[in-house]
Amino acid sequence: MEKDCIFCRIVSGEIPSEKVYEDGTVTAFKDINPVAPVHILVIPNRHIPSLAHVQESDRELLGHLLVALTKVATSQGLDQRGYRVVVNTGQDGGQAVGHIHFHLLGGRSMAWPPG
Amino acid sequence: MEKDCIFCRIVSGEIPSEKVYEDGTVTAFKDINPVAPVHILVIPNRHIPSLAHVQESDRELLGHLLVALTKVATSQGLDQRGYRVVVNTGQDGGQAVGHIHFHLLGGRSMAWPPG
Repeated sequence: MEKDCIFCRIVSGEIPSEKVYEDGTVTAFKDINPVAPVHILVIPNRHIPSLAHVQESDRELLGHLLVALTKVATSQGLDQRGYRVVVNTGQDGGQAVGHIHFHLLGGRSMAWPPG
Repeated sequence: MEKDCIFCRIVSGEIPSEKVYEDGTVTAFKDINPVAPVHILVIPNRHIPSLAHVQESDRELLGHLLVALTKVATSQGLDQRGYRVVVNTGQDGGQAVGHIHFHLLGGRSMAWPPG
């Protein structure tokens, strides 16, 4: 845990959030600035700054996170109509918090291009 | 392999593409309708229709795919400036081909919201 990381502090419960899923590896909570009717962030509990910092040893963690994300999508009623997943990395990607987060977006038709 | 799936046929080489990475599990190739200076699709070689069709047993595959994607990003020179990853699922997500694909987008600043 990084003490100055807002997402680490959400995982620990130090900062309140609307969690919709958590297990020993992954936490999902509502984005406070939603851009779709359903907008959830799915993050690893462990602090990893971005996709560009991922190691080979994070493979299992990332696979687990993606499977958990699909379960969250189903629990939010998105599996029939569909959804978009977005991961921003670094400056060009528009990453706003330095802890990997997967945006799960649904409840409306998503446009193309994606930003 | 699904014989009517364009991405399965790209993996097999039956349909030509500009591949930038391939291994026994994953293939990455340039999107033919790019929306950014770098626009690559990273897909599992095995046919999985969408994220909504993912099983627990696909965990390792998905973890491998994401790690491979970060290597492709680095090989394309995107790791310093950053990039966006997008996965469309179903109708609301805007999924255009029924074989899971991860869009890797970079070489420009990506806007928000993501579609």
